[in-house]
Amino acid sequence: MRVDNKDYRTIWYNADTKYVEVIDQRLLPFKFEIVEVKTTAEMAKIILEMYVRGAGLIGASAAWGLYLATKENNDISFIEQSAKVLAQTRPTAVNLQAALDKMLPKLRNTPEENRLQIAKDIAQQISDDDASSCKRIGELGYDFIKNKISKGKNRRINILTHCNAGWLAFVDYGSALAPIYEAYNNGMDIHVYVDETRPRNQGARLTAWELGKHGVPHTLIADNVGGHLMQHGMVDMVIVGADRVANNGDVANKIGTYLKALAAHDNNVPFVVAFPSTTFDSQIENGVEDIPIEMRDTKEVLYMLGEGKAEEESFRIAPEFTKAVNYGFDVTPARLINAYFTENGIFESVEELLKGEGSLSAAFRMTKCER
Amino acid sequence: MRVDNKDYRTIWYNADTKYVEVIDQRLLPFKFEIVEVKTTAEMAKIILEMYVRGAGLIGASAAWGLYLATKENNDISFIEQSAKVLAQTRPTAVNLQAALDKMLPKLRNTPEENRLQIAKDIAQQISDDDASSCKRIGELGYDFIKNKISKGKNRRINILTHCNAGWLAFVDYGSALAPIYEAYNNGMDIHVYVDETRPRNQGARLTAWELGKHGVPHTLIADNVGGHLMQHGMVDMVIVGADRVANNGDVANKIGTYLKALAAHDNNVPFVVAFPSTTFDSQIENGVEDIPIEMRDTKEVLYMLGEGKAEEESFRIAPEFTKAVNYGFDVTPARLINAYFTENGIFESVEELLKGEGSLSAAFRMTKCER
Repeated sequence: MRVDNKDYRTIWYNADTKYVEVIDQRLLPFKFEIVEVKTTAEMAKIILEMYVRGAGLIGASAAWGLYLATKENNDISFIEQSAKVLAQTRPTAVNLQAALDKMLPKLRNTPEENRLQIAKDIAQQISDDDASSCKRIGELGYDFIKNKISKGKNRRINILTHCNAGWLAFVDYGSALAPIYEAYNNGMDIHVYVDETRPRNQGARLTAWELGKHGVPHTLIADNVGGHLMQHGMVDMVIVGADRVANNGDVANKIGTYLKALAAHDNNVPFVVAFPSTTFDSQIENGVEDIPIEMRDTKEVLYMLGEGKAEEESFRIAPEFTKAVNYGFDVTPARLINAYFTENGIFESVEELLKGEGSLSAAFRMTKCER
Repeated sequence: MRVDNKDYRTIWYNADTKYVEVIDQRLLPFKFEIVEVKTTAEMAKIILEMYVRGAGLIGASAAWGLYLATKENNDISFIEQSAKVLAQTRPTAVNLQAALDKMLPKLRNTPEENRLQIAKDIAQQISDDDASSCKRIGELGYDFIKNKISKGKNRRINILTHCNAGWLAFVDYGSALAPIYEAYNNGMDIHVYVDETRPRNQGARLTAWELGKHGVPHTLIADNVGGHLMQHGMVDMVIVGADRVANNGDVANKIGTYLKALAAHDNNVPFVVAFPSTTFDSQIENGVEDIPIEMRDTKEVLYMLGEGKAEEESFRIAPEFTKAVNYGFDVTPARLINAYFTENGIFESVEELLKGEGSLSAAFRMTKCER
């Protein structure tokens, strides 16, 4: 997507230097800095310290990390050791392990002298697949918005989103924001209410930044505001990403998503979840009951970052004696979800999702087997 | 309530100096400072600049402001002029005008030489009435918690609250927090989940502070977390204050209250609103449709305050180009409210509230006529 009229991805191969480059997302929205990554150890650090984040981007970063390992030393034991280091950076990130699992067997079965080329080709493929899945979600989602939301009428469409499921979380386009970019690029009058997304403020820091840099009209709101907006007809659709989708259609996503789904339901506002099919987890039957919820550092709640502030300079926003809890995610029950946007199609109900052949579930299972 | 083992109100008359003292709430939770107020102009500034805030406390502050005017100059024209200045500090605060309306006629009808004593007596009475209304809400609310929530079982009761409806918003005790203090003082094992309450962070700054200083166990959470907690049985009751209660039982309160009411409803968690009867506005038939919602400065959304930061030093937490909207309140429909706690009684349904004699509505009307 565009930053100051230039197209970017979140990670890319530099053909001149033969190294990898990423956007340092820790500095956004106040500084836009590109970091050159030369070694697999550097890439591990960059994933661990969250220069890069988001399911799709973490997967691609791990793939490029293994390319850099191969570039340093094409001996398979060094490559395997590097894969282990990369895998431990974000142990719960499914895409990270999937990328390594895709690359390692092929590298093992390739003669040393060809490994670098193979590593580069697969890493590039993983990046391109991520981008094209997201692009497809955008196209299908834009069709949905045209047909089901604006219904051909030439009026401003107001979308509310939570957290960051934009191109910064993937290699390009994003999941929840992909239909918005597609709509904007096609000239639709679209405007986005951006939830701040406490405690890490991904909405205020990342979603507002990427929408604004691409030119998409948007308004930042406190997480508390969405209910009021929906109650007063100011939101046409809510669209969010997903961290994990269970077999029963329940969706784990950033904490606070469930509250927005309740407000959408209470006011007949369509509530949509957009995700690449890799996010579907057929091992989990009941999302609300079975998806484990990460507890994160309470410093995220008790301290605040801002312009020009590094983590260690953040300041406290609560009394010294006050403790906090910090659940990273919540689970939205399928009964509150009106549609699932994926690269394989759009599914407009849990029933459709569960009814077998042609369903989301079946589509995902097929996708998983074929890959 | 207690601060470091000493009992305080938010405003009081100092018999030695004959001046008024208040807690400077702008500095909480990082500094606890008491300010001496010597003139009516100083009191106007203190209300305007939000050293004091909250319906009950603003009313008492205006009353003491008129006492200070009388102390400076007991001529009725000076007193009336001072009342006008005080009234303009927070024009939408009902309690402020009510306090002035109560004092002015009596001061007019009192000989000059007795006015100071009368002004002091009425201001003290307004303070005491506010405190005793809140104390009564606490006693009735504690009964409700004992009988309907804990049902005599000896277990920890978890309460979630939003914003600050504690003693800092009144002269003492508070509305939503009064039953919690009463329960704590009576030895109940009670714990409070405190919503941060973006964008002004009254939960993190004020509610956490006053609960902690009194000794009440509490945990700060981002506004996004309540839905998850209720979904997993971690909240026994939600209790909030009210800025205005309409004739149909709809409640205007701090933005985000509606989202918590939806989550409570979805998970069969009792959702309770506590308020002194002065908060009832019989002029408003339909809360959701008719209560005007204040739009506040978007700086509250785009900038953040923290420890050691004055307003002008706050830092930006969103991109330079990003705009915001800042609705101060939302309206929770009566259908989501399980009980109303007032000093006149506890009303467990909208039906009860609306059914005529003995109802909340009738009780309020009577109260208003009698005063």
